[in-house]
Amino acid sequence: MEHGFSGKKITVLGLGTMGAAIARAWHAAGYQVTVWNRTASRAAPLAAEGAKVAATAREAVAASDLVVACLLDDASVGTALTDADLAGKDLVNITTSTPGTARDRAEWAAGRGARYLAGGIMAVPPMIGVPDSGAYVFYSGSPELFAERRDALAVPAATRYVGADPGAAALHDVALLSAMTGMFAGVSHAFALMRGTRVAPKEFAALLVEWLTAMAGYANGVAVHLETGDYTLGVTSNLAMMVRANETLLRTAEEQGVSPELLGPFLTLMERRLADGHGDEGTTGVVDLLRR
Amino acid sequence: MEHGFSGKKITVLGLGTMGAAIARAWHAAGYQVTVWNRTASRAAPLAAEGAKVAATAREAVAASDLVVACLLDDASVGTALTDADLAGKDLVNITTSTPGTARDRAEWAAGRGARYLAGGIMAVPPMIGVPDSGAYVFYSGSPELFAERRDALAVPAATRYVGADPGAAALHDVALLSAMTGMFAGVSHAFALMRGTRVAPKEFAALLVEWLTAMAGYANGVAVHLETGDYTLGVTSNLAMMVRANETLLRTAEEQGVSPELLGPFLTLMERRLADGHGDEGTTGVVDLLRR
Repeated sequence: MEHGFSGKKITVLGLGTMGAAIARAWHAAGYQVTVWNRTASRAAPLAAEGAKVAATAREAVAASDLVVACLLDDASVGTALTDADLAGKDLVNITTSTPGTARDRAEWAAGRGARYLAGGIMAVPPMIGVPDSGAYVFYSGSPELFAERRDALAVPAATRYVGADPGAAALHDVALLSAMTGMFAGVSHAFALMRGTRVAPKEFAALLVEWLTAMAGYANGVAVHLETGDYTLGVTSNLAMMVRANETLLRTAEEQGVSPELLGPFLTLMERRLADGHGDEGTTGVVDLLRR
Repeated sequence: MEHGFSGKKITVLGLGTMGAAIARAWHAAGYQVTVWNRTASRAAPLAAEGAKVAATAREAVAASDLVVACLLDDASVGTALTDADLAGKDLVNITTSTPGTARDRAEWAAGRGARYLAGGIMAVPPMIGVPDSGAYVFYSGSPELFAERRDALAVPAATRYVGADPGAAALHDVALLSAMTGMFAGVSHAFALMRGTRVAPKEFAALLVEWLTAMAGYANGVAVHLETGDYTLGVTSNLAMMVRANETLLRTAEEQGVSPELLGPFLTLMERRLADGHGDEGTTGVVDLLRR
């Protein structure tokens, strides 16, 4: 009784680890899933589970009104869809891209008659389709598409719609990943300092997780500064004090034989801001120094 | 009945914001607190609250068997205590210092007949003496001193003893502050990316706090890698994938007019590790690259 599926058809283009995980989540939720992958062999496990495998991306697009692209990069999206008929389709592109590329792709999709939604996935594949895993996807672009498809989109991971600008999802995605990268750099430096001591890495990791979790609220303070323009609000440890403490961080790195290359750039910007006469502020002024 | 206090005397040297906060916490808990500060006027508020004010550091040290130093830097400790009689005293030095300086100061104190404990304060002054504020102090050095004085030491903030090496407290302190500095750098970059958009900083901060809290567990994964020597364990997003994603981070920074200077060094080390043939690992190898 294939017609029983008619309202719940979905096409997934791209079966990398992430694409396969989301295709599987929709299949498990009762959707009639059509998949396509450039290297056809990657579709075999999903085919065995009951998904339909299309021989071409064009054929896959024809199979469903809702088409999800999860490919290597934006160029792959253009290549895969080059001869597909997108008229009247809802194209949801969760391929990693920059905000600018996402906007260009949205225009391209509109020119081919599709409604368009861009997505940025805040999860790793094992979190997909797992309730309460914390996984979510930022979406931006057509508000109508999002409103009409939100139940389907919520199957692999929670959804967060961040606006009509198709670039907004990628911007949110990249901003969070960038912040995480900074945290990872700090954690790497911290572990390097502790190497060669008798402290067990697991014990130290527990302290780190607790401390970073407690200090993450720093972002709320920065937000208050940026919204009010007053970078001294609520500051208990000001730039003058922090720059003095930075000397201890650098001297300790030297004592422990650890390169200061990951910490240096931020400390330099703090010093520059202090030299500009902002010693009574927190570190929020660094945000301004980063803007060109 | 001053003798009623005899078992609960404590001296605090240094009344900066932190020294004053801890002196006040002990006073509030019923200790007979003697204070000294290089600039005597800073002692006035505490004197008004009932603390004893010593005219010299030597006099302050003579007043109690338990002496806590919370001064500007290690040099100030040497200067303040130059003519004090430390024989038989318990000296607890919570002045910011490097592990090496802490070890030197411990030796200096031993040479003058004092038991010695070094402390690293993981808190800002408003958290001191506030139950459940999350404030704590790393202590290292004499295990006997710590065991005998732990109740007194627990008054201003929770205590965490991290070993007999007098440098251990400073090392833990600096390692956590360094990790935090990395996180702050990442957060600064993220806010810089979002400036000029219509997203309210407070809204974005909420996303950041949630995301960084969820990702702080990264430290546990690094610990497993360092303990086992296998940097591929539990890796769901490997170095090869991450380095490819880094291009998107850098291109987005460029599109948004944000300097890549805070992210660059970590991305470079990831690339170096990938070039060394470790594409199936996580980012833990960066820790090794930082060690000289």
